[in-house]
Amino acid sequence: MRAAIYQSAGNVVVEDVPDAALVEPTDVVVRVLRSCICGSDLWAYRGIIQRTPGARLGHEFIGLVEEVGSEVRTLAVGDLVVAPFQWSDNTCPACLDGLQTSCENGGTFGAPGTDGGQGEAVRVPQADGTLVAVPGGGADSDEKLLKALLATTDVAVTGLHGAVLADTTAGSTVAVIGDGAVGLCAVLGANRIIGAERIILMSRHADRQELGRKFGATDIIESRGTEGIEAVRELTGGLGVRHVVEAVGTPESWQMAVGMAREGGTIGAVGVPHTIPELPLFEPFRHHLRIHLGIAPVRRYLPDLIERALAGTYDAGPVFDSSLPLADVAKGYAAMSARESIKVMLV
Amino acid sequence: MRAAIYQSAGNVVVEDVPDAALVEPTDVVVRVLRSCICGSDLWAYRGIIQRTPGARLGHEFIGLVEEVGSEVRTLAVGDLVVAPFQWSDNTCPACLDGLQTSCENGGTFGAPGTDGGQGEAVRVPQADGTLVAVPGGGADSDEKLLKALLATTDVAVTGLHGAVLADTTAGSTVAVIGDGAVGLCAVLGANRIIGAERIILMSRHADRQELGRKFGATDIIESRGTEGIEAVRELTGGLGVRHVVEAVGTPESWQMAVGMAREGGTIGAVGVPHTIPELPLFEPFRHHLRIHLGIAPVRRYLPDLIERALAGTYDAGPVFDSSLPLADVAKGYAAMSARESIKVMLV
Repeated sequence: MRAAIYQSAGNVVVEDVPDAALVEPTDVVVRVLRSCICGSDLWAYRGIIQRTPGARLGHEFIGLVEEVGSEVRTLAVGDLVVAPFQWSDNTCPACLDGLQTSCENGGTFGAPGTDGGQGEAVRVPQADGTLVAVPGGGADSDEKLLKALLATTDVAVTGLHGAVLADTTAGSTVAVIGDGAVGLCAVLGANRIIGAERIILMSRHADRQELGRKFGATDIIESRGTEGIEAVRELTGGLGVRHVVEAVGTPESWQMAVGMAREGGTIGAVGVPHTIPELPLFEPFRHHLRIHLGIAPVRRYLPDLIERALAGTYDAGPVFDSSLPLADVAKGYAAMSARESIKVMLV
Repeated sequence: MRAAIYQSAGNVVVEDVPDAALVEPTDVVVRVLRSCICGSDLWAYRGIIQRTPGARLGHEFIGLVEEVGSEVRTLAVGDLVVAPFQWSDNTCPACLDGLQTSCENGGTFGAPGTDGGQGEAVRVPQADGTLVAVPGGGADSDEKLLKALLATTDVAVTGLHGAVLADTTAGSTVAVIGDGAVGLCAVLGANRIIGAERIILMSRHADRQELGRKFGATDIIESRGTEGIEAVRELTGGLGVRHVVEAVGTPESWQMAVGMAREGGTIGAVGVPHTIPELPLFEPFRHHLRIHLGIAPVRRYLPDLIERALAGTYDAGPVFDSSLPLADVAKGYAAMSARESIKVMLV
């Protein structure tokens, strides 16, 4: 089969690889219908983190079940399934706490020895604990639904999880730092799922501002750093915001998050902290801040979000502003790295 | 009047200073009955932080109201009052959120231009929003009650607040890092106020272990670092603890806190982070940690804790393991700095 391969920073290709196949009786093989490129895929592409040459790429995909291991009980050949970006047994203590991204039998698609989502098919370990079947879904499901479902594999949930970690409540004011796909999905989640009343999005790109408003942002702030902090404080009577979503993961974004939080406020952090190894603690201490971090446990949210996607009440699909065949995956990485595209879908 | 003065690292004296006097109509003057030395006073004494030579010392005291400003409504001459270590108006947005240590009109006793608690009398600004009168209390209150009340000015509440910040619940397991007076009070608060079932205290000093057990610690762990983490994990089925109180504020104590927390666990941090300017973020991110920091808003807790002290159901007084006259304050600093005393009361 064909699959995307990381060769070196800036260099991604599609090559022939061994066909995805059952290994454990708890596996299924999924024929990929749609996959996509993640902001976190760009870390290695940009050379910020190291990745082994030859590694498979991609961890977001939906597809059709093609083969089913002998111990799998909840899935059948032909099912349309949504895959969280990590697999999980959904029975260990962490999973039972709703933290499937800490599963003791879990792992990430694309890790050494596994298939990546950016390929024709994927072996899915721990299939019962990982995949969620879409009731009535199939290869003929309409494009809008497929896009909405694809978004729930990572980006829609990572954004929503940021708003949840920030303790955002119905009727509250929340600020979102980061206008990438995750930040935009934090806006959508805060609006459609949680019911926040005022949603402040930090963004200086016209196209992202537009999608942000469509997703529910009530205020857009273009300035950054101290100016950005002042602008948020001005909008909130000088007090700052109780709920801040940190969806970037850099020293600058964290400085803004700490600076705009109200006394006793909560920062929900879903930006992978690759370039901020350390957070200065004294300001958070002085201002009673609550800092909640984590890799979104997508599996916990999936059943609910799939229902909403089917009902048409939750659709993060518009974050995919371009679509390419798998063969052109390199173009997709280049476009996202240059910020010419918010998020690229692979067909 | 006489008051303790900071001269330089390791050098504290008692000198004549101007008498405490009303300045604003919202002030009262309190004649100090009992005061004490705080672990945080030791930072400057040990030369870890800078302090201006000539600064007043001490921020924990109880006493009798001696003079009352014209706009003070809740206090009268002769009242026995408990002072939180910071004053507050108790009406601003932060105060209304129960975060009186972020009061927009607040300040700390001993700051430049103010009286310190380690002296004969103190001018208390924002008296109505700061002081809490002890019903029926006076100069003739018994020694045990005075000690219990003195503890509530800071240390008892800072410890309890750590357990509260750690989201400790009735019946839960909590680990306390730090066997100083604050850590011991975290044990007491988790036990008597919150009702935690299992309380693990990290301690390697026999006298502190003994008081820790008296305050409710069910398990004592002497090892530190990786060994300490492993010991806590062994006690908790390998999973780690959901609730961790960080009552030290050093890189080593934070490393232990992060290492022993269960997936999704909460760290309540009340150790002033003087020597840990920065916290590595990746491990907290990977393990879904919740980090809650803050300077204990003592005023919020006082009415309840005073009631409990009067009823004899909450007594952190035993943290005072030695007592000295004000004139001997230098001996008290030396004893606490050498860890020969847990906490020194000044009479």
